[in-house]
Amino acid sequence: MRIGLDMMGGDYAPLEAVKGVKLFLDTVADVHLVLIGDEQALAPLLADARLDQSKYSVVHSSQIIGMNEHPTKALKEKPESSISIGFHLLKNGKIDAFISAGNTGAMMVGTFYSIKAIDGVQRPTISTPVPRENGTFGVLLDVGINADCKPENLVQFAILGSLYSQYILKIDNPKVGLLNIGEEEGKGNLLAQATYPLLKETKQINFVGNIEGRDIFTDKADVIVCEGFTGNVVLKMAESFHEVAVRRNIKDDYMDKFNFESYGGTPVLGVSHPVIIGHGISQATAFKNMIVLAQQMIQSKLLEKVKESFVAKEA
Amino acid sequence: MRIGLDMMGGDYAPLEAVKGVKLFLDTVADVHLVLIGDEQALAPLLADARLDQSKYSVVHSSQIIGMNEHPTKALKEKPESSISIGFHLLKNGKIDAFISAGNTGAMMVGTFYSIKAIDGVQRPTISTPVPRENGTFGVLLDVGINADCKPENLVQFAILGSLYSQYILKIDNPKVGLLNIGEEEGKGNLLAQATYPLLKETKQINFVGNIEGRDIFTDKADVIVCEGFTGNVVLKMAESFHEVAVRRNIKDDYMDKFNFESYGGTPVLGVSHPVIIGHGISQATAFKNMIVLAQQMIQSKLLEKVKESFVAKEA
Repeated sequence: MRIGLDMMGGDYAPLEAVKGVKLFLDTVADVHLVLIGDEQALAPLLADARLDQSKYSVVHSSQIIGMNEHPTKALKEKPESSISIGFHLLKNGKIDAFISAGNTGAMMVGTFYSIKAIDGVQRPTISTPVPRENGTFGVLLDVGINADCKPENLVQFAILGSLYSQYILKIDNPKVGLLNIGEEEGKGNLLAQATYPLLKETKQINFVGNIEGRDIFTDKADVIVCEGFTGNVVLKMAESFHEVAVRRNIKDDYMDKFNFESYGGTPVLGVSHPVIIGHGISQATAFKNMIVLAQQMIQSKLLEKVKESFVAKEA
Repeated sequence: MRIGLDMMGGDYAPLEAVKGVKLFLDTVADVHLVLIGDEQALAPLLADARLDQSKYSVVHSSQIIGMNEHPTKALKEKPESSISIGFHLLKNGKIDAFISAGNTGAMMVGTFYSIKAIDGVQRPTISTPVPRENGTFGVLLDVGINADCKPENLVQFAILGSLYSQYILKIDNPKVGLLNIGEEEGKGNLLAQATYPLLKETKQINFVGNIEGRDIFTDKADVIVCEGFTGNVVLKMAESFHEVAVRRNIKDDYMDKFNFESYGGTPVLGVSHPVIIGHGISQATAFKNMIVLAQQMIQSKLLEKVKESFVAKEA
């Protein structure tokens, strides 16, 4: 298993990326990391970290896509950037997963242009973990790349989220809820009204009905689907509550879990290779967590399960 | 000024309604309250409360619309209910405002059928106060009655919210923000993309651009507009964070402000008479706050300002 990591992406790269690599390699044996970044910048940091040299290799990249560059333009003009090289390696099977905390837009564009959506998946999606008071995690999707959706998109998010919940979060027969503004069928906006009956008849998922804003952080549902507009507002609002708690010196284990940066990143679900997009302010633990997530996605054969589900659905 | 109050609405009616009336009347001189409810149930409570009898009168209602009754059906079959009588009095000018913590759906239906929208207002709306850390309040609208909206609806919400912010919350030249999933113009779903330029060219408001989920509870904008689907999810999610804080014994002045029930209720904006819809679990302070809000709406001539704004816009 070879996992590719962009060492130049994120506000604290490459130092925190190296630290994350060390945290990971110190505990894991059977993964080879492909570190994509500026060789000269990395060399002293890697030497200091005293890593087992058999466990990683460095692929040199001479360019960096800045956090605020225009995604499409940057990818086109910087073929030697760590992100461009990462996608090139992924597309050609030289790595089995690609991770970056760099320019989010460039990661999105790179994902959609370099590697394909899985057959049958109309709209790949990104999700966020949903911390619950009982210590478990749900998943909410889409959280921003699909601002306008059709009912069938939400059904696909439900399938993708269920598989992710089952194989990565290890939840058996995960409960799927539709984010809505009322409990009963028939409530909501036109999209929610049209989506409800489709979810009800989708045999691949365990649909439990509507989930209101007050239920998001409970275990009423393990997978909550919505279009990316509402999902993004929910995610950013939850982040802001965490910031309020930090600013106001509120000490609480559960509130700490709304520090979404610590989770590392979000996988793009529905594409043919594992791609994980990290927060710009990722630090060592976040980098390590992203590598662990990539490993889990590969080991669990999540993408095979997705392919099988969508082939079955097409047939 | 005569303010009508449904004494039978809400989980704690009529006792908490009477207590709220007392809290209000003990401090205010120039308002006459019209208490609509079961005379026999109210008599001993009103006697106990030792109110100045010149400051209120009782209008008997022999029926009650339960919290879970079907709104349209209940209003039709129960013309002697406190809600039906309240709207009858309002429509006929016997009271200048009507307040109820009863069946929300019946209050909505009653509002739209008994009294009219103000000329030019396409979609009346409901809002929620937005507590900010600096102690001030913003306003977010719509929060649930308009789940699907057109761009011009959001522009009208912006005007209604601005007037409310200016005349009730006493904010000079309130900043209007569009709830969105990115900062720049052009971001967002189709609705947000189409609404942005309309808001920019609306001279009656002080448009400051997009507001992301993380900015809702800051003072970036005083009036935040969105369709009622997202607004409702935001409101209920904020309520759930307050419940988390209570459950986890987090003591914090600011978190306490997310106890939306304490504010009393929300006015329906854009209709021709003041109507205030309270939370089902309203208690004394909430009832008092709703009466104060009705008084402010009347004294500030808010509805006259709305009428002038929409006449001006139509012309």
